[in-house]
Amino acid sequence: MTSTITATYELDTAIAPERAADIIAGEQSSGTFVAIPGEDEALKARAAATWQITPLNVPCTAPNKRYLLKLSWPLQNLGASLPNLLATVAGNLYELKHVAKLRLLDIELPDEFAAAYPGPAFGIAGTRKLAGVATGPLVGTIIKPSVGLSADGTTEFVDQLCAAGVDFIKDDELQADGPSCPFDERARKVMDVINRHADRSGKKVMYAFNLTGELDEMKRRHDLVLSLGGTLTMLSLNSVGLTGFNAFRKHSQLPIHAHRNGWGYLKDGWSYIAYQKLWRLAGADQMHVNGLANKFQETDDSVIASARECFIPLFKHKPCTVMPVFSSGQTVNQAPGTWAALQSTDLIYLAGGGLFAHPGGIAAGVAALRQSWEAAMNNVPLEVAAKTHRELKEALEKFAG
Amino acid sequence: MTSTITATYELDTAIAPERAADIIAGEQSSGTFVAIPGEDEALKARAAATWQITPLNVPCTAPNKRYLLKLSWPLQNLGASLPNLLATVAGNLYELKHVAKLRLLDIELPDEFAAAYPGPAFGIAGTRKLAGVATGPLVGTIIKPSVGLSADGTTEFVDQLCAAGVDFIKDDELQADGPSCPFDERARKVMDVINRHADRSGKKVMYAFNLTGELDEMKRRHDLVLSLGGTLTMLSLNSVGLTGFNAFRKHSQLPIHAHRNGWGYLKDGWSYIAYQKLWRLAGADQMHVNGLANKFQETDDSVIASARECFIPLFKHKPCTVMPVFSSGQTVNQAPGTWAALQSTDLIYLAGGGLFAHPGGIAAGVAALRQSWEAAMNNVPLEVAAKTHRELKEALEKFAG
Repeated sequence: MTSTITATYELDTAIAPERAADIIAGEQSSGTFVAIPGEDEALKARAAATWQITPLNVPCTAPNKRYLLKLSWPLQNLGASLPNLLATVAGNLYELKHVAKLRLLDIELPDEFAAAYPGPAFGIAGTRKLAGVATGPLVGTIIKPSVGLSADGTTEFVDQLCAAGVDFIKDDELQADGPSCPFDERARKVMDVINRHADRSGKKVMYAFNLTGELDEMKRRHDLVLSLGGTLTMLSLNSVGLTGFNAFRKHSQLPIHAHRNGWGYLKDGWSYIAYQKLWRLAGADQMHVNGLANKFQETDDSVIASARECFIPLFKHKPCTVMPVFSSGQTVNQAPGTWAALQSTDLIYLAGGGLFAHPGGIAAGVAALRQSWEAAMNNVPLEVAAKTHRELKEALEKFAG
Repeated sequence: MTSTITATYELDTAIAPERAADIIAGEQSSGTFVAIPGEDEALKARAAATWQITPLNVPCTAPNKRYLLKLSWPLQNLGASLPNLLATVAGNLYELKHVAKLRLLDIELPDEFAAAYPGPAFGIAGTRKLAGVATGPLVGTIIKPSVGLSADGTTEFVDQLCAAGVDFIKDDELQADGPSCPFDERARKVMDVINRHADRSGKKVMYAFNLTGELDEMKRRHDLVLSLGGTLTMLSLNSVGLTGFNAFRKHSQLPIHAHRNGWGYLKDGWSYIAYQKLWRLAGADQMHVNGLANKFQETDDSVIASARECFIPLFKHKPCTVMPVFSSGQTVNQAPGTWAALQSTDLIYLAGGGLFAHPGGIAAGVAALRQSWEAAMNNVPLEVAAKTHRELKEALEKFAG
């Protein structure tokens, strides 16, 4: 077997780059100070990580210099296991003394990983089919306030949102099975309303039920959602972890909305390009990518790079492409920029305040968002489209600056 | 129910501290720009996070100032769920625009969490009993090289180590079920040797078998280790994640050695004081704390704070105390400092090179480590003890400076 795993890092170090690379590659593979008579060289030939390191001519904190480091491991060292991949590509290397800064930029996996993991069961096409949205973005919202509504309070909102014509609603990541809003009660009441609207309109609103919890709870909640006619589940990736996610994925018969909350404490050590590959291969169908002009620290370039990556095949015969989910401070204003950068509407566009706070109410908020996307896709400036679309005009005034 | 969850952070921000606290507390609870007629105040009274913020008069990057921020949530918001706790205390708050830097220092959990999770099944007393070590530290080593040895190669080392009198051996975190060293073959061969030595010596060496992988694999590997008479399993916490760990813990009948590899990409956002509480409550029995004068970046003060925390009860009626595991560049030299700081030997002391590289061989390496601890516990300087202990003398010479 000659398959290899490759990881690319940005490395800041003050020592000679070749020495830093040797230390890191050694720490993460067969580096040892113990000579095993007669076997050492054969063992290293079999198991050692190899490296390439090149200077990046960019400023960084003195006395360090910044490098691009590529490490490659024989698959033979660990096998096609995502949990064990983590220990190899992101284990004890960040803390090494000569590593002033390290960021995992990308991971390339051999085909054995494609064979070992399922990838998304639904992806873009499956999501569109279940949502009843053949073209254009899925427009929707997040239940607000994030936490504090009862099951009845949540359901009242859902009723209004369905009447207003949204495609998509999600639980907040803070709400899974809080005693004030128990999962089962919420799921039953919400699906009752969604099903009633579907009977009327012919379209079933996709609701991301936050199943996050223990494995047996997640499976049971999944089964309940499925039995109620729900079309989506949601997991907080960093809360659940890879092993729990993979065990759930084996059980799952619905698409999985992957929430990345906690990304903030990972972002200095990981690029989202590397991170999302793990979860796509594991079976996420929809992945959060933040949004343009968001309320967080992330730049627009970084957001778009994350979103584009969702459309790039992971493997030739197993693309694992997923729907990027845009959220955080989204209004009508970001539709043109998002469209211009992606030239795709295979995405979920979630506005909280950008929908609820529309002066014309929720239905006007939904209409304005759709109008903004229609204008964007036709390369019509929002200000021009607003002349013939009242809801869009009001939204532009409300969410100006 | 008036139980609350409290998290303490170190926060760097350039804006007024009260405003920063409001933004963070709002993002992580019921903060919303949407007024819900007649319900808003009641909802906030029920669900809002409350805060206290005090200046820390320490230097930090201008124009920021550093604060100690305490956030408290009603347990009612989420219930006693460790995965959902993560989204609440460490979700979307690190990325907020006005948060220049945030580090979770500590978490205080109400008794409902103690009731909901098992904690360690074995802990310090159970580990000692299974290891056959009533007093003193468990002295041991990690299989080196980290990866590349076959099952037979590993077993040869284990044979030598058992003959040399170690208490404890662990798999490297890079080795779980690599095709070059399949788990089942390694477990069978290693336990065959360990059991043989136990028959001879009356003491069974404790071996931390790295089970990390998918849940069904981990359960199956656990069952194999149990059936072979093994006394310990090991999981890479960050690879497995909380939900996977908790599902495994329900199945487990052996102590769990908790490996923190990947800690390097978490350490800027988490203190180990906060992090280890989650895993102790979940059921880890032994937790890595690095070691004094280690090969990583961590300071000795930080290592000792982590180790001390392992002995501090989590709950009055459910202490969840665990054995700290010292490793990384450990030799005879760190015994006195470790003892002086902890005044306890309820710990596992792992030396790789500090044992293997002893000029007198493995048995001399083990003897020297034991001699260093005996000297330390009797407050005898190592140089004095070395006058009457040859192995210690040789180790001091070998590992000087």
